[in-house]
Amino acid sequence: MQDSPPRRIEFWFDFGSNYSYISAMRIAELAARNGVEVAWNPFLLGPIFKSFGWDTSPFVLQKEKGAYTWKDMARQCKKYGLPWRQPSSFPRAAVLPSRVALFAQGTPWHGEFCRRVFALNFAEDRDVHTPEAVTGILEQLGVPAAEVLQQAQSDAIKLRLRQQTEMAVARGVFGAPTFFAAGEMFWGNDRLEDALAHAAGTPPAGSV
Amino acid sequence: MQDSPPRRIEFWFDFGSNYSYISAMRIAELAARNGVEVAWNPFLLGPIFKSFGWDTSPFVLQKEKGAYTWKDMARQCKKYGLPWRQPSSFPRAAVLPSRVALFAQGTPWHGEFCRRVFALNFAEDRDVHTPEAVTGILEQLGVPAAEVLQQAQSDAIKLRLRQQTEMAVARGVFGAPTFFAAGEMFWGNDRLEDALAHAAGTPPAGSV
Repeated sequence: MQDSPPRRIEFWFDFGSNYSYISAMRIAELAARNGVEVAWNPFLLGPIFKSFGWDTSPFVLQKEKGAYTWKDMARQCKKYGLPWRQPSSFPRAAVLPSRVALFAQGTPWHGEFCRRVFALNFAEDRDVHTPEAVTGILEQLGVPAAEVLQQAQSDAIKLRLRQQTEMAVARGVFGAPTFFAAGEMFWGNDRLEDALAHAAGTPPAGSV
Repeated sequence: MQDSPPRRIEFWFDFGSNYSYISAMRIAELAARNGVEVAWNPFLLGPIFKSFGWDTSPFVLQKEKGAYTWKDMARQCKKYGLPWRQPSSFPRAAVLPSRVALFAQGTPWHGEFCRRVFALNFAEDRDVHTPEAVTGILEQLGVPAAEVLQQAQSDAIKLRLRQQTEMAVARGVFGAPTFFAAGEMFWGNDRLEDALAHAAGTPPAGSV
Protein backbone atom coordinates (compact mmCIF):
# COMPACT_ATOMS: atom_id res chain seq x y z
CA MET A 1 0.00 0.00 0.00
CA GLN A 2 1.22 3.45 -0.86
CA ASP A 3 0.49 6.59 1.08
CA SER A 4 -1.63 9.04 -0.89
CA PRO A 5 0.14 12.34 -1.64
CA PRO A 6 -0.41 15.00 1.02
CA ARG A 7 -3.33 17.29 0.37
CA ARG A 8 -2.17 20.84 0.04
CA ILE A 9 -3.45 24.41 -0.08
CA GLU A 10 -1.38 27.37 -1.26
CA PHE A 11 -2.10 30.51 0.74
CA TRP A 12 -1.02 33.63 -1.18
CA PHE A 13 -0.99 36.78 0.93
CA ASP A 14 0.35 40.30 1.36
CA PHE A 15 1.20 41.34 4.94
CA GLY A 16 -0.54 44.66 4.27
CA SER A 17 -3.86 42.99 3.34
CA ASN A 18 -6.46 43.07 6.09
CA TYR A 19 -8.49 40.10 4.85
CA SER A 20 -5.24 38.13 4.55
CA TYR A 21 -4.83 38.76 8.30
CA ILE A 22 -8.08 36.95 9.07
CA SER A 23 -7.12 33.98 6.89
CA ALA A 24 -3.61 33.85 8.37
CA MET A 25 -5.07 33.51 11.84
CA ARG A 26 -7.59 30.81 10.83
CA ILE A 27 -5.87 28.67 8.23
CA ALA A 28 -3.61 26.43 10.34
CA GLU A 29 -6.40 25.01 12.50
CA LEU A 30 -8.93 24.71 9.65
CA ALA A 31 -6.39 23.03 7.39
CA ALA A 32 -5.34 20.56 10.09
CA ARG A 33 -9.00 19.68 10.63
CA ASN A 34 -9.29 18.92 6.90
CA GLY A 35 -6.01 16.97 6.78
CA VAL A 36 -4.50 19.58 4.45
CA GLU A 37 -0.98 21.04 4.45
CA VAL A 38 -0.54 24.82 4.13
CA ALA A 39 2.07 26.41 1.84
CA TRP A 40 2.48 30.06 2.89
CA ASN A 41 3.21 32.27 -0.12
CA PRO A 42 3.98 35.93 0.54
CA PHE A 43 3.83 38.26 -2.45
CA LEU A 44 3.37 41.99 -3.06
CA LEU A 45 -0.01 43.37 -4.09
CA GLY A 46 1.40 46.84 -4.84
CA PRO A 47 2.84 45.99 -8.29
CA ILE A 48 -0.39 44.15 -9.19
CA PHE A 49 -2.55 47.12 -8.21
CA LYS A 50 -0.19 49.37 -10.20
CA SER A 51 -0.75 47.17 -13.27
CA PHE A 52 -4.48 47.97 -12.92
CA GLY A 53 -3.65 51.68 -12.86
CA TRP A 54 -4.17 51.99 -9.09
CA ASP A 55 -1.54 53.68 -6.93
CA THR A 56 -2.83 52.14 -3.69
CA SER A 57 -5.44 49.77 -2.24
CA PRO A 58 -9.02 49.90 -3.60
CA PHE A 59 -10.06 50.41 0.05
CA VAL A 60 -8.27 53.76 -0.11
CA LEU A 61 -9.22 54.65 -3.70
CA GLN A 62 -12.94 53.90 -3.22
CA LYS A 63 -13.97 55.74 -0.11
CA GLU A 64 -17.39 54.08 0.24
CA LYS A 65 -15.86 50.63 0.01
CA GLY A 66 -13.08 51.63 2.39
CA ALA A 67 -15.52 52.95 5.01
CA TYR A 68 -17.47 49.70 4.79
CA THR A 69 -14.33 47.55 4.97
CA TRP A 70 -13.35 48.83 8.40
CA LYS A 71 -16.83 48.11 9.77
CA ASP A 72 -16.78 44.70 8.14
CA MET A 73 -13.33 43.95 9.58
CA ALA A 74 -14.47 44.80 13.12
CA ARG A 75 -17.49 42.51 12.73
CA GLN A 76 -15.53 39.69 11.08
CA CYS A 77 -12.78 39.75 13.70
CA LYS A 78 -15.41 39.64 16.43
CA LYS A 79 -17.09 36.70 14.71
CA TYR A 80 -13.83 34.76 14.48
CA GLY A 81 -12.61 35.78 17.94
CA LEU A 82 -9.61 37.72 16.62
CA PRO A 83 -8.09 40.89 18.07
CA TRP A 84 -8.50 43.91 15.79
CA ARG A 85 -7.24 47.47 15.72
CA GLN A 86 -7.83 49.52 12.58
CA PRO A 87 -4.39 50.36 11.16
CA SER A 88 -3.59 54.08 11.36
CA SER A 89 -1.47 53.56 8.23
CA PHE A 90 -2.93 51.49 5.38
CA PRO A 91 -1.81 49.59 3.42
CA ARG A 92 1.45 49.12 5.30
CA ALA A 93 4.65 48.41 3.39
CA ALA A 94 5.88 44.90 4.04
CA VAL A 95 8.83 44.15 1.78
CA LEU A 96 11.23 43.17 4.56
CA PRO A 97 8.92 40.75 6.43
CA SER A 98 7.90 39.25 3.07
CA ARG A 99 11.54 38.52 2.31
CA VAL A 100 12.01 36.99 5.77
CA ALA A 101 8.90 34.87 5.26
CA LEU A 102 10.30 33.58 1.98
CA PHE A 103 13.64 32.85 3.62
CA ALA A 104 11.79 31.00 6.37
CA GLN A 105 9.83 28.66 4.09
CA GLY A 106 10.44 25.14 5.30
CA THR A 107 11.49 26.16 8.81
CA PRO A 108 9.33 25.21 11.81
CA TRP A 109 8.83 28.90 12.74
CA HIS A 110 7.51 29.96 9.35
CA GLY A 111 3.75 30.06 10.05
CA GLU A 112 4.17 31.62 13.47
CA PHE A 113 6.43 34.32 12.02
CA CYS A 114 3.74 35.21 9.47
CA ARG A 115 0.98 35.30 12.10
CA ARG A 116 3.06 37.63 14.30
CA VAL A 117 3.74 40.03 11.43
CA PHE A 118 0.01 40.17 10.67
CA ALA A 119 -0.82 40.65 14.37
CA LEU A 120 1.66 43.53 14.65
CA ASN A 121 -0.10 45.28 11.73
CA PHE A 122 -3.76 44.51 12.48
CA ALA A 123 -3.98 43.79 16.21
CA GLU A 124 -1.34 46.26 17.46
CA ASP A 125 -1.39 48.91 14.70
CA ARG A 126 2.38 48.96 14.32
CA ASP A 127 4.63 49.17 11.29
CA VAL A 128 5.98 45.87 10.04
CA HIS A 129 8.56 46.91 7.44
CA THR A 130 11.34 48.10 9.74
CA PRO A 131 14.34 45.98 10.78
CA GLU A 132 13.35 46.70 14.42
CA ALA A 133 9.85 45.26 13.99
CA VAL A 134 11.11 42.14 12.21
CA THR A 135 13.99 41.70 14.67
CA GLY A 136 11.53 41.87 17.57
CA ILE A 137 9.45 39.05 16.14
CA LEU A 138 12.47 36.90 15.29
CA GLU A 139 13.81 37.31 18.82
CA GLN A 140 10.43 36.31 20.29
CA LEU A 141 10.69 33.15 18.20
CA GLY A 142 14.22 32.42 19.43
CA VAL A 143 15.66 32.74 15.93
CA PRO A 144 19.09 34.39 15.32
CA ALA A 145 17.67 37.69 14.08
CA ALA A 146 20.77 39.39 12.69
CA GLU A 147 21.72 36.36 10.64
CA VAL A 148 18.19 35.86 9.30
CA LEU A 149 17.85 39.54 8.36
CA GLN A 150 21.11 39.41 6.47
CA GLN A 151 20.12 36.28 4.55
CA ALA A 152 16.65 37.66 3.86
CA GLN A 153 18.20 40.68 2.17
CA SER A 154 20.40 38.65 -0.14
CA ASP A 155 19.99 39.11 -3.88
CA ALA A 156 18.62 35.57 -4.13
CA ILE A 157 15.73 36.28 -1.76
CA LYS A 158 15.06 39.73 -3.29
CA LEU A 159 14.76 38.00 -6.65
CA ARG A 160 12.47 35.33 -5.21
CA LEU A 161 10.04 37.93 -3.88
CA ARG A 162 9.87 39.54 -7.31
CA GLN A 163 9.33 36.10 -8.82
CA GLN A 164 6.55 35.34 -6.32
CA THR A 165 4.68 38.43 -7.45
CA GLU A 166 5.27 37.64 -11.12
CA MET A 167 4.02 34.11 -10.56
CA ALA A 168 0.91 35.42 -8.82
CA VAL A 169 0.18 37.64 -11.83
CA ALA A 170 0.79 34.77 -14.23
CA ARG A 171 -1.69 32.62 -12.31
CA GLY A 172 -4.43 35.27 -12.41
CA VAL A 173 -4.13 36.61 -8.86
CA PHE A 174 -5.74 40.07 -8.54
CA GLY A 175 -6.12 40.40 -4.76
CA ALA A 176 -5.37 38.77 -1.45
CA PRO A 177 -5.80 36.39 0.17
CA THR A 178 -5.88 33.97 -2.75
CA PHE A 179 -5.86 30.21 -2.36
CA PHE A 180 -4.91 27.47 -4.84
CA ALA A 181 -6.25 24.01 -4.14
CA ALA A 182 -6.22 21.03 -6.53
CA GLY A 183 -5.83 23.29 -9.57
CA GLU A 184 -8.52 25.81 -8.66
CA MET A 185 -8.15 29.43 -7.52
CA PHE A 186 -10.25 30.87 -4.68
CA TRP A 187 -10.19 34.56 -3.74
CA GLY A 188 -10.89 36.04 -0.33
CA ASN A 189 -11.12 34.92 3.26
CA ASP A 190 -14.79 34.12 2.57
CA ARG A 191 -13.64 31.26 0.31
CA LEU A 192 -11.15 29.69 2.73
CA GLU A 193 -13.55 26.91 3.77
CA ASP A 194 -14.50 26.14 0.14
CA ALA A 195 -10.82 26.06 -0.89
CA LEU A 196 -9.98 23.67 1.95
CA ALA A 197 -12.94 21.43 1.11
CA HIS A 198 -11.72 21.36 -2.49
CA ALA A 199 -8.16 20.53 -1.36
CA ALA A 200 -9.52 17.74 0.84
CA GLY A 201 -11.75 16.41 -1.94
CA THR A 202 -15.00 16.94 -0.01
CA PRO A 203 -17.97 19.00 -1.21
CA PRO A 204 -18.20 22.54 0.22
CA ALA A 205 -20.75 23.02 2.96
CA GLY A 206 -23.60 25.07 1.50
CA SER A 207 -26.71 26.17 3.31
CA VAL A 208 -29.75 27.40 1.37
CA MET B 1 -48.67 41.97 26.17
CA GLN B 2 -47.56 43.63 22.96
CA ASP B 3 -46.11 41.89 19.96
CA SER B 4 -42.51 42.85 19.34
CA PRO B 5 -41.94 44.70 16.06
CA PRO B 6 -41.21 42.41 13.11
CA ARG B 7 -37.54 41.77 12.46
CA ARG B 8 -36.60 43.00 9.05
CA ILE B 9 -33.85 42.85 6.47
CA GLU B 10 -33.58 45.20 3.49
CA PHE B 11 -32.26 43.45 0.41
CA TRP B 12 -30.88 45.97 -2.12
CA PHE B 13 -30.18 44.47 -5.52
CA ASP B 14 -29.70 45.12 -9.23
CA PHE B 15 -31.21 42.54 -11.60
CA GLY B 16 -27.98 42.62 -13.60
CA SER B 17 -25.82 41.65 -10.60
CA ASN B 18 -24.79 37.99 -10.55
CA TYR B 19 -24.14 37.77 -6.82
CA SER B 20 -27.55 39.40 -6.24
CA TYR B 21 -29.00 36.41 -8.12
CA ILE B 22 -27.60 33.98 -5.56
CA SER B 23 -28.97 36.02 -2.66
CA ALA B 24 -32.36 36.42 -4.33
CA MET B 25 -32.71 32.66 -4.59
CA ARG B 26 -31.62 32.05 -0.98
CA ILE B 27 -33.03 34.91 1.07
CA ALA B 28 -36.68 33.92 1.49
CA GLU B 29 -36.01 30.55 3.10
CA LEU B 30 -33.08 31.77 5.23
CA ALA B 31 -35.04 34.80 6.43
CA ALA B 32 -38.08 32.70 7.32
CA ARG B 33 -35.84 30.37 9.32
CA ASN B 34 -34.56 33.41 11.26
CA GLY B 35 -38.04 34.89 11.74
CA VAL B 36 -37.07 37.91 9.63
CA GLU B 37 -39.15 39.76 7.00
CA VAL B 38 -37.54 40.65 3.67
CA ALA B 39 -37.96 44.07 2.03
CA TRP B 40 -36.92 43.73 -1.63
CA ASN B 41 -35.28 46.94 -2.88
CA PRO B 42 -34.37 47.13 -6.57
CA PHE B 43 -31.99 49.90 -7.59
CA LEU B 44 -29.58 50.60 -10.45
CA LEU B 45 -25.86 50.01 -10.04
CA GLY B 46 -25.01 51.73 -13.33
CA PRO B 47 -25.24 55.32 -12.04
CA ILE B 48 -23.26 54.33 -8.93
CA PHE B 49 -20.48 52.76 -11.01
CA LYS B 50 -20.49 55.88 -13.22
CA SER B 51 -19.97 58.04 -10.13
CA PHE B 52 -16.76 56.01 -9.51
CA GLY B 53 -15.65 56.77 -13.08
CA TRP B 54 -16.52 53.27 -14.35
CA ASP B 55 -18.60 52.83 -17.49
CA THR B 56 -19.55 49.22 -16.70
CA SER B 57 -19.18 46.45 -14.09
CA PRO B 58 -15.78 45.93 -12.44
CA PHE B 59 -16.09 42.31 -13.61
CA VAL B 60 -15.82 43.65 -17.16
CA LEU B 61 -13.28 46.41 -16.44
CA GLN B 62 -10.90 44.13 -14.54
CA LYS B 63 -10.38 41.12 -16.74
CA GLU B 64 -8.61 38.98 -14.11
CA LYS B 65 -11.41 39.57 -11.61
CA GLY B 66 -14.01 38.92 -14.28
CA ALA B 67 -12.45 35.62 -15.34
CA TYR B 68 -12.41 34.55 -11.71
CA THR B 69 -15.98 35.66 -11.09
CA TRP B 70 -17.45 33.27 -13.64
CA LYS B 71 -15.56 30.34 -12.15
CA ASP B 72 -16.65 31.42 -8.70
CA MET B 73 -20.28 31.74 -9.81
CA ALA B 74 -20.30 28.20 -11.22
CA ARG B 75 -18.90 26.84 -7.97
CA GLN B 76 -21.16 28.94 -5.75
CA CYS B 77 -24.31 27.97 -7.67
CA LYS B 78 -23.33 24.32 -7.44
CA LYS B 79 -22.76 24.72 -3.70
CA TYR B 80 -26.19 26.29 -3.20
CA GLY B 81 -27.96 23.96 -5.63
CA LEU B 82 -28.89 26.77 -8.04
CA PRO B 83 -29.09 26.57 -11.84
CA TRP B 84 -26.44 28.67 -13.58
CA ARG B 85 -25.68 29.70 -17.12
CA GLN B 86 -23.03 32.38 -17.69
CA PRO B 87 -24.79 35.37 -19.28
CA SER B 88 -23.70 35.98 -22.88
CA SER B 89 -24.44 39.67 -22.24
CA PHE B 90 -23.21 41.21 -18.97
CA PRO B 91 -24.26 43.27 -17.12
CA ARG B 92 -27.77 43.15 -18.55
CA ALA B 93 -29.92 46.29 -18.57
CA ALA B 94 -32.85 45.94 -16.18
CA VAL B 95 -34.67 49.26 -15.92
CA LEU B 96 -38.11 47.89 -16.88
CA PRO B 97 -38.17 44.90 -14.49
CA SER B 98 -36.81 47.18 -11.74
CA ARG B 99 -39.76 49.51 -12.26
CA VAL B 100 -42.18 46.58 -12.20
CA ALA B 101 -40.54 45.28 -9.00
CA LEU B 102 -41.03 48.69 -7.40
CA PHE B 103 -44.64 48.80 -8.54
CA ALA B 104 -45.13 45.29 -7.11
CA GLN B 105 -43.85 46.10 -3.61
CA GLY B 106 -46.48 44.97 -1.16
CA THR B 107 -48.15 42.53 -3.57
CA PRO B 108 -48.06 38.78 -2.86
CA TRP B 109 -46.22 38.13 -6.15
CA HIS B 110 -43.38 40.54 -5.50
CA GLY B 111 -40.65 38.12 -4.37
CA GLU B 112 -41.52 35.53 -6.98
CA PHE B 113 -41.43 38.17 -9.74
CA CYS B 114 -37.93 39.17 -8.67
CA ARG B 115 -36.70 35.56 -8.53
CA ARG B 116 -38.04 34.89 -12.03
CA VAL B 117 -36.31 37.97 -13.48
CA PHE B 118 -33.02 36.83 -11.95
CA ALA B 119 -33.55 33.27 -13.22
CA LEU B 120 -34.19 34.55 -16.76
CA ASN B 121 -30.86 36.40 -16.67
CA PHE B 122 -28.63 33.90 -14.85
CA ALA B 123 -30.22 30.48 -15.33
CA GLU B 124 -31.58 30.94 -18.88
CA ASP B 125 -29.20 33.58 -20.29
CA ARG B 126 -32.01 35.73 -21.64
CA ASP B 127 -32.54 39.49 -21.72
CA VAL B 128 -34.73 40.88 -18.96
CA HIS B 129 -35.28 44.50 -20.02
CA THR B 130 -37.77 43.96 -22.86
CA PRO B 131 -41.55 44.30 -22.49
CA GLU B 132 -41.81 40.74 -23.89
CA ALA B 133 -39.58 39.28 -21.18
CA VAL B 134 -41.41 41.09 -18.39
CA THR B 135 -44.82 40.29 -19.86
CA GLY B 136 -43.92 36.61 -20.00
CA ILE B 137 -43.09 36.55 -16.31
CA LEU B 138 -46.19 38.51 -15.31
CA GLU B 139 -48.39 36.12 -17.29
CA GLN B 140 -46.77 33.12 -15.61
CA LEU B 141 -47.70 34.72 -12.30
CA GLY B 142 -51.31 35.28 -13.39
CA VAL B 143 -50.96 39.05 -13.11
CA PRO B 144 -52.62 41.41 -15.64
CA ALA B 145 -49.45 42.15 -17.59
CA ALA B 146 -50.55 45.05 -19.80
CA GLU B 147 -51.98 46.97 -16.86
CA VAL B 148 -48.93 46.37 -14.67
CA LEU B 149 -46.53 47.40 -17.45
CA GLN B 150 -48.45 50.62 -17.97
CA GLN B 151 -48.45 51.46 -14.27
CA ALA B 152 -44.79 50.54 -13.93
CA GLN B 153 -43.89 53.08 -16.62
CA SER B 154 -45.74 55.93 -14.95
CA ASP B 155 -43.78 59.04 -14.00
CA ALA B 156 -44.32 58.22 -10.34
CA ILE B 157 -42.58 54.83 -10.62
CA LYS B 158 -39.83 56.22 -12.86
CA LEU B 159 -39.15 58.81 -10.18
CA ARG B 160 -39.18 56.17 -7.45
CA LEU B 161 -36.51 54.10 -9.20
CA ARG B 162 -34.29 57.18 -9.44
CA GLN B 163 -34.95 57.85 -5.77
CA GLN B 164 -34.07 54.27 -4.83
CA THR B 165 -30.68 54.66 -6.47
CA GLU B 166 -30.13 58.07 -4.83
CA MET B 167 -31.07 56.59 -1.46
CA ALA B 168 -28.64 53.71 -1.98
CA VAL B 169 -25.84 56.21 -2.67
CA ALA B 170 -26.81 58.30 0.36
CA ARG B 171 -26.61 55.21 2.55
CA GLY B 172 -23.14 54.26 1.33
CA VAL B 173 -24.07 51.45 -1.07
CA PHE B 174 -21.25 50.76 -3.56
CA GLY B 175 -22.23 47.33 -4.89
CA ALA B 176 -24.87 44.63 -4.81
CA PRO B 177 -26.30 42.76 -3.12
CA THR B 178 -26.28 45.02 -0.06
CA PHE B 179 -28.28 44.28 3.08
CA PHE B 180 -29.39 46.59 5.87
CA ALA B 181 -30.28 44.98 9.18
CA ALA B 182 -30.84 46.75 12.50
CA GLY B 183 -28.91 49.83 11.38
CA GLU B 184 -25.92 48.01 9.90
CA MET B 185 -24.89 47.58 6.26
CA PHE B 186 -23.61 44.26 4.91
CA TRP B 187 -22.22 43.84 1.39
CA GLY B 188 -22.26 40.71 -0.72
CA ASN B 189 -23.98 37.35 -0.81
CA ASP B 190 -21.22 36.09 1.51
CA ARG B 191 -22.64 38.31 4.27
CA LEU B 192 -26.29 37.24 3.93
CA GLU B 193 -26.14 34.89 6.93
CA ASP B 194 -24.39 37.51 9.10
CA ALA B 195 -26.94 40.16 8.11
CA LEU B 196 -29.84 37.85 8.96
CA ALA B 197 -28.27 36.93 12.28
CA HIS B 198 -27.89 40.64 13.03
CA ALA B 199 -31.53 41.28 12.05
CA ALA B 200 -32.64 38.42 14.30
CA GLY B 201 -30.49 39.64 17.19
CA THR B 202 -28.42 36.45 17.35
CA PRO B 203 -24.60 36.26 17.08
CA PRO B 204 -23.26 35.28 13.64
CA ALA B 205 -22.04 31.70 13.33
CA GLY B 206 -18.25 31.81 13.09
CA SER B 207 -15.95 28.85 12.76
CA VAL B 208 -12.22 29.22 13.45
